[in-house]
Amino acid sequence: MASSPRVLVYGGKGALGSTIVNFFKSKNWWVASIDLFPNEDAHANIVLNISESWIEQEKQVTSSVEDTLKGEKLDAVLCVAGGWAGGNAAHKDFVKNADLMWKQSVWSSAIAAEISAKHLKDGGLLTLPGAQPAVAGTPGMIGYGMAKAAVHQLTKSLGSEGGGLPENSCVAAILPVTLDTPMNRKWMKNADFSTWTPLEFVADLFFKWATNEDRPKSGSLMQLITKDGQTELVKA
Amino acid sequence: MASSPRVLVYGGKGALGSTIVNFFKSKNWWVASIDLFPNEDAHANIVLNISESWIEQEKQVTSSVEDTLKGEKLDAVLCVAGGWAGGNAAHKDFVKNADLMWKQSVWSSAIAAEISAKHLKDGGLLTLPGAQPAVAGTPGMIGYGMAKAAVHQLTKSLGSEGGGLPENSCVAAILPVTLDTPMNRKWMKNADFSTWTPLEFVADLFFKWATNEDRPKSGSLMQLITKDGQTELVKA
Repeated sequence: MASSPRVLVYGGKGALGSTIVNFFKSKNWWVASIDLFPNEDAHANIVLNISESWIEQEKQVTSSVEDTLKGEKLDAVLCVAGGWAGGNAAHKDFVKNADLMWKQSVWSSAIAAEISAKHLKDGGLLTLPGAQPAVAGTPGMIGYGMAKAAVHQLTKSLGSEGGGLPENSCVAAILPVTLDTPMNRKWMKNADFSTWTPLEFVADLFFKWATNEDRPKSGSLMQLITKDGQTELVKA
Repeated sequence: MASSPRVLVYGGKGALGSTIVNFFKSKNWWVASIDLFPNEDAHANIVLNISESWIEQEKQVTSSVEDTLKGEKLDAVLCVAGGWAGGNAAHKDFVKNADLMWKQSVWSSAIAAEISAKHLKDGGLLTLPGAQPAVAGTPGMIGYGMAKAAVHQLTKSLGSEGGGLPENSCVAAILPVTLDTPMNRKWMKNADFSTWTPLEFVADLFFKWATNEDRPKSGSLMQLITKDGQTELVKA
């Protein structure tokens, strides 16, 4: 694997993360996963502790990444960590859920950005996990919307001059409506699955971008709009 | 004061907060302040503990607000709490500063939203502290931009159907470029102060909105653009 390209998947044990790990592995990339549990299919694993604080988690992850890379650079950092919780301002768990969304989506995205600033090659790729609904107000899931709006802002900032990423690198967020995961099928049994974005589409898209095919302008928010099983990319 | 209108100023001991407290007091409103230190000019004070967690802070503040209001409703909740710290993704304090920005701007805004959902009158006013630069990427102050983007999203969500605020209430964020505070004058001695927004302008604006004069559509982000000492409101 010495000369293989290298990708780090943040959230590499989740449904989308696992699909990406396997896809890049099948293309002979060296693949590392960061998650709460190891992904046995990855070449290297960084296992997160549930930390009390963002700064503690940052220290743990960045130090483990340095130990794993041993001075090698990354071709791509793909952050797909996140979660979902609902609630408006009158919901009894409003702040609790907003706190959880922040930790799941923003802690991970910001640490992925820091890893990219330090370890991505010039011309490398960073992807971040946005959400299409957060392009407008999200009254039924306010904490989720705040966290995703912050990820969108992070993407725009990193894609601007002086954001801290290596030369000629590309950062983009994907903004899915609904991903076609087993968990979403379980919880939304009666939905129209033909409007859900297949995980393989995302893995293939990331692989294209990672190999410098059809990359969006750095800082872009790319909505994934799926109809009749076909997914279109629409810049937000 | 029994029949006076009631306003709660979140961040009522800061430069802008103090100006607002005095302005509303001069108009014979009952004024409560929430801050790390009491504002002796306010009729009631809720003093924040520096909390380890968002949920702890929420519990402390909401319980103190209930004790203070004793069942009375509020006509307005004006959140002006916040702070500033810079840094891009390559900055050594990137996550530390992003964490601080989140706590200063988003914890307070979300708790102000929860208080408004519970204690604002029908037709009341909630204002939140946005920032004009966060309308685009903010590469030199990424954590600040993420926090302010979340406040903008919170505003849009609360202004949407089902956000949880009382009937006919109005929520709006103000998006200043630079406020004319003593601290900003101290740190940016050579700036053009004629482009900074005077604190009295903001206090007067909030008073108009609170008394139902020229209210923006609920959910609006209102940029404060100051030129030659004159401030214009421009919807983002």
